[in-house]
Amino acid sequence: MLLNRFGLAILTLAFTFSLSAQRTLRTLYSPGKQTMIAVGLNKSGEIFYQIIYRNRVAVDWSRLGFETRSFDLREGFKLLGAAELPHDETWKPVWGEVAQIRNRYNELEYSLADEAGRRMTIRFRAYDEGAGFRYEFPKQDGLSAMTVTDELTEFQMTADHTAWWIPGDYDSNEHVYTTCPISKIDCTHYNKEYAIATQHIVRMKNVQTPIAMRMADGTHIALAEAALVDFGALHLETDVEKLKFKAFLIASADSTVKSVNTLPFHTPWRTVLLSPDAAGILESKLILNLNEPCKIEDVSWIKPQKYVGVWWEMHVGLATWDYEATADMMAATGREVKGKHGANTENVKRYIDFAAKYGFDGVLVEGWNTGWKDWFGKWKDEVFDFARPYPDYDIDALSRYAREKGVRIIMHHETSAAVPSYERQMDAAYAYMNRYGMNSVKTGYVGKIIPRGEWHDGQWMANHYWRVAERTAQHRIMVDMHEPVRPSGLHRTWPNWLACEAARGQEFNAWSTGNPPEHECILPFTRILGGPMDYTPGIFEVRMNAYDPNKKEVVHTTVAKQLALYVTLYSPLQMAADLPENYEKRLDVFQFIRDVPVDWDDTRVLGAAIGDYITVARRQKGAQNWFLGSITDENPRDFSVRLDFLPAGKTYDAVIYADGPDAHWKDNPYPVAISRRTVQKGDVLELRLAAGGGCAISLMAP
Amino acid sequence: MLLNRFGLAILTLAFTFSLSAQRTLRTLYSPGKQTMIAVGLNKSGEIFYQIIYRNRVAVDWSRLGFETRSFDLREGFKLLGAAELPHDETWKPVWGEVAQIRNRYNELEYSLADEAGRRMTIRFRAYDEGAGFRYEFPKQDGLSAMTVTDELTEFQMTADHTAWWIPGDYDSNEHVYTTCPISKIDCTHYNKEYAIATQHIVRMKNVQTPIAMRMADGTHIALAEAALVDFGALHLETDVEKLKFKAFLIASADSTVKSVNTLPFHTPWRTVLLSPDAAGILESKLILNLNEPCKIEDVSWIKPQKYVGVWWEMHVGLATWDYEATADMMAATGREVKGKHGANTENVKRYIDFAAKYGFDGVLVEGWNTGWKDWFGKWKDEVFDFARPYPDYDIDALSRYAREKGVRIIMHHETSAAVPSYERQMDAAYAYMNRYGMNSVKTGYVGKIIPRGEWHDGQWMANHYWRVAERTAQHRIMVDMHEPVRPSGLHRTWPNWLACEAARGQEFNAWSTGNPPEHECILPFTRILGGPMDYTPGIFEVRMNAYDPNKKEVVHTTVAKQLALYVTLYSPLQMAADLPENYEKRLDVFQFIRDVPVDWDDTRVLGAAIGDYITVARRQKGAQNWFLGSITDENPRDFSVRLDFLPAGKTYDAVIYADGPDAHWKDNPYPVAISRRTVQKGDVLELRLAAGGGCAISLMAP
Repeated sequence: MLLNRFGLAILTLAFTFSLSAQRTLRTLYSPGKQTMIAVGLNKSGEIFYQIIYRNRVAVDWSRLGFETRSFDLREGFKLLGAAELPHDETWKPVWGEVAQIRNRYNELEYSLADEAGRRMTIRFRAYDEGAGFRYEFPKQDGLSAMTVTDELTEFQMTADHTAWWIPGDYDSNEHVYTTCPISKIDCTHYNKEYAIATQHIVRMKNVQTPIAMRMADGTHIALAEAALVDFGALHLETDVEKLKFKAFLIASADSTVKSVNTLPFHTPWRTVLLSPDAAGILESKLILNLNEPCKIEDVSWIKPQKYVGVWWEMHVGLATWDYEATADMMAATGREVKGKHGANTENVKRYIDFAAKYGFDGVLVEGWNTGWKDWFGKWKDEVFDFARPYPDYDIDALSRYAREKGVRIIMHHETSAAVPSYERQMDAAYAYMNRYGMNSVKTGYVGKIIPRGEWHDGQWMANHYWRVAERTAQHRIMVDMHEPVRPSGLHRTWPNWLACEAARGQEFNAWSTGNPPEHECILPFTRILGGPMDYTPGIFEVRMNAYDPNKKEVVHTTVAKQLALYVTLYSPLQMAADLPENYEKRLDVFQFIRDVPVDWDDTRVLGAAIGDYITVARRQKGAQNWFLGSITDENPRDFSVRLDFLPAGKTYDAVIYADGPDAHWKDNPYPVAISRRTVQKGDVLELRLAAGGGCAISLMAP
Repeated sequence: MLLNRFGLAILTLAFTFSLSAQRTLRTLYSPGKQTMIAVGLNKSGEIFYQIIYRNRVAVDWSRLGFETRSFDLREGFKLLGAAELPHDETWKPVWGEVAQIRNRYNELEYSLADEAGRRMTIRFRAYDEGAGFRYEFPKQDGLSAMTVTDELTEFQMTADHTAWWIPGDYDSNEHVYTTCPISKIDCTHYNKEYAIATQHIVRMKNVQTPIAMRMADGTHIALAEAALVDFGALHLETDVEKLKFKAFLIASADSTVKSVNTLPFHTPWRTVLLSPDAAGILESKLILNLNEPCKIEDVSWIKPQKYVGVWWEMHVGLATWDYEATADMMAATGREVKGKHGANTENVKRYIDFAAKYGFDGVLVEGWNTGWKDWFGKWKDEVFDFARPYPDYDIDALSRYAREKGVRIIMHHETSAAVPSYERQMDAAYAYMNRYGMNSVKTGYVGKIIPRGEWHDGQWMANHYWRVAERTAQHRIMVDMHEPVRPSGLHRTWPNWLACEAARGQEFNAWSTGNPPEHECILPFTRILGGPMDYTPGIFEVRMNAYDPNKKEVVHTTVAKQLALYVTLYSPLQMAADLPENYEKRLDVFQFIRDVPVDWDDTRVLGAAIGDYITVARRQKGAQNWFLGSITDENPRDFSVRLDFLPAGKTYDAVIYADGPDAHWKDNPYPVAISRRTVQKGDVLELRLAAGGGCAISLMAP
């Protein structure tokens, strides 16, 4: 009985709340009764909520509220009203993992006033796959704007769950994940052996959202944020004794100011994703559903894309960003690499030829514009000119050449995090792109933010990213942001915002200790919950000593796993990141990258365990072809995959790109065993994944 | 003998420097040998300089040097070379107090290297009217940018001179001046009874430049800054015991960062203005001369102007900036004033009619655009829209109407100090002005700066003001900046930058304790040394109880003094700030404001004592008419003015606007005695100035 399921909740309610306060208690069930949210006021008028999921407490009684510079919204609340509304709609994303998304929830509008008469509403949405809530501050007399100094939201966990997390860094999310019980969360090592150049980690118990957790019974929880607009990003402060997380907002340059908001205002959604297994977390559309619909009327110009580009050659030390060909790599590696300037006309032509020959949509060119000589680590303003190419980059000729070849050059706007400088040039820079027929831009925010004292994850920058999405849309430009705050589903609202980096990407394998084999098995449960990542897979030459015998860095996967990432790491923007010459040496393996699409009508998670493995099948947009990707961490694994997702009565030509015999990410990463067979619904494929390996399969409809 | 004059200097040198260090000693004389600068290194390789003026030490041995984040430029210096060059040129300002300016100095390029081989040059210029020096950091290997953490420059005074100063406020210069000996400098009272809403005063011994001083023997010294570009403003930290000032740069949001500069770089000029009397300080062109020449090729569109506008009616409480007509005055007065929205179409037409009828060039309209409802004190971003008029402001109709009447509407861009928001809209806002035929804009920066943590006087904002000057010039727009850093002569480089407020203006008389009668007798020796001020004189209704019987505020001058300010407070942009109806009641007195020009071919300071009185005569640009203004502080004064400046053999029609019998700023401010006579060169006029009074005279050539 469903009511019995929630008996526990009712017991706790009676225990927590006095009889008078119980009058304020409201419960909200999800449409399929999987999730129940309870909310009420205690006798001090403080707000508490609880989330029950499938007969277990997912979030135990936890505090809600705010502090502002001028007044508190902590206590003394009275309930003004509580309205409940059902909702059920189905919408079609412009691009995505599935052709359509059902948004079905029950909503509770819980309206409060404090003793001074200040009004605040908390809007809860109960989904069968979790919960979301946000705070709303309606227009009211005598309160036109408020300076938020703290958010009191808490998430009380019920036991010492296993958690996958990165530190609450104000400025970067390019970290390796830590797996540990909540009680052991501690960021200290991120300031030591795991430190990266651009981080700012000051609170050792703070973690970023999304954070993923597994309960002892296998229930999975992810705490995340949806629709981060005009606010600081949601980080969480861990109480390792009470096993509780509390909201921590990144401040502005004045550290006592978390955000300033004009009323009416509502916060982003605080979300709790729930699933009986790991796969359910991957399939959840809760974050997207909590975002606002598309703001762009004509979306015909927005296209998912595969691209190559002048990029990896800089990371492996063959070329430089700067024209003077001196020292850019200092930035990432602390090591000076001298080489040729990568973005020269001849070299870019070579990439255009390659893209045209093998069917890629775009060619990214980094280092094309002036400013790179002295761009990193100086914290100075006015670094780059976004409309001035280096003298060896003939933008007129290359634009013509690309157009003739049916390829688009992808613009690159590294800002060096000197953001007002970029904002001042933005309109001119986008007009410049329009003039040259470029419709995609990769932006970058490497380094400490100017305005000094602002952070990548603060309100000021959140507004900037939004502004870039909006202005690029006005110019019919697609955007891929590197080093922004991690995404929160805003690509539903701005589908021209194809992807973000906002996590530790492939390049770390080129010049650092790299990304451990489990890394790509954690990303989809954490960072990628908020939106696609431009991870730049597809590295075939996985050992850096191929470029320099002194180098010890390696990509921590087999080559087969690099292929599988195109399926397991969902993105409408995927790079084939390696050098053309490395692909041309292994055209048989490369065929998978050529074939795999970047837009899908359907997605099935066939198996997943956070940090261990992921197996996903996806159906190509507007076609019957399926693609399957399976990856593992440092452990070899075998899977039997039953092809139940194929339509009945059809045969498919399967090409299987498996780890070769004795493959191993470290000892033997290169072998890819390619086999072909004809398959149909119900057939079972035996996948053998090497340590750090993977398997990619194309299933072409006849 | 000139050499003897400097005997003192040579004695001190021998005393200060060891024999070996004396080899580094250099002396630089001004062309007329009035000023001598000595510079040398002591045995630790620290840099010291001294300034001798007319046989007395003006600045005794004082430290020079810098500290940066990565290294010090304090000591261990060696002299690489010292080149001396004379310079003599005459240039014509686009507008100004005189038709041409002679720039005559001797220059010493004192080139140094420290033990690590880092190079720094100090460039000294010796003028007969003072000295300037700046630091230069040439391009050099291994040093592409530097983060300045402190400037060591000192100014060692020789005795406890009387000083006129305002506090070293990071955010405002709208303060009443204090007059006291150097040893008594203390800003504490500025945080108490003298506090204003927008100040940030944290160091009680810090003062702003320019600061004016008088030595016991009557020699006057002003410490100032010229050409503030890409740097924080120069404030001074007072050592009240040693009677020494040390450079204090306003920091960025990161308080350890004073500025970040890309090499090659040079600081603004640190200047010492010297004169045997107060008048000489007013006549000095040293600050202008140290600025770079005009950067605008075609200056034909730049015109000095007189204007009226929708402004004073808000300050006196008859109207509001915001359309909703509620509460803007809260900002300045802490008092809520409800009224009509001033910038409505009908009211603006009335001002256009008035301007056309009486020959004014422009009509300023404040409160025309959306954003005022909630603009002050919230420290929020995105306040104003600079291309969206309020619904009762018909910009199309008014632009047409103004054009037909031969008047220009002056645009108003209050930013609420949300500066990136303004920068994002800047180009669009100027294009909007161009579209409506507006060629002047008044900008405003009321409140705490966004980017949060930046200050009005810091490097980031200095770069912003420069950018506004540059971008308005590109759009052929003249600019008048309110609440910027105080000017430093950059109007030589950008003559479209007509004026700044950057000091305590007339409006304080409308709603605060106001400006004491001495205020306008100090401004020209301090704030206005750096450039013209939009003080907004011309108030005829000097008692605020005319608008509201409960009001006690008054303008602290007689009406005659209001007229004289048009001559004594030089500016190419002058407002007739009072309401049209107040002028139409006294058209005889108003005649002087109609007659007085705003551009001059010649200027003579006939008498001046800082804080006491100023008498100035100026010849109208391109005409033979002269205008004379004389003002006094709270004391009545009589002057005999001999009209020696008139050309021989010509008679002039003089109209004398004097304080009426028994006039007194407080008890009897209104009477103006107007008399006419014919005068010629050599005639003597007896001026009788009331307490807080003044006298204005037009001398029209036949």
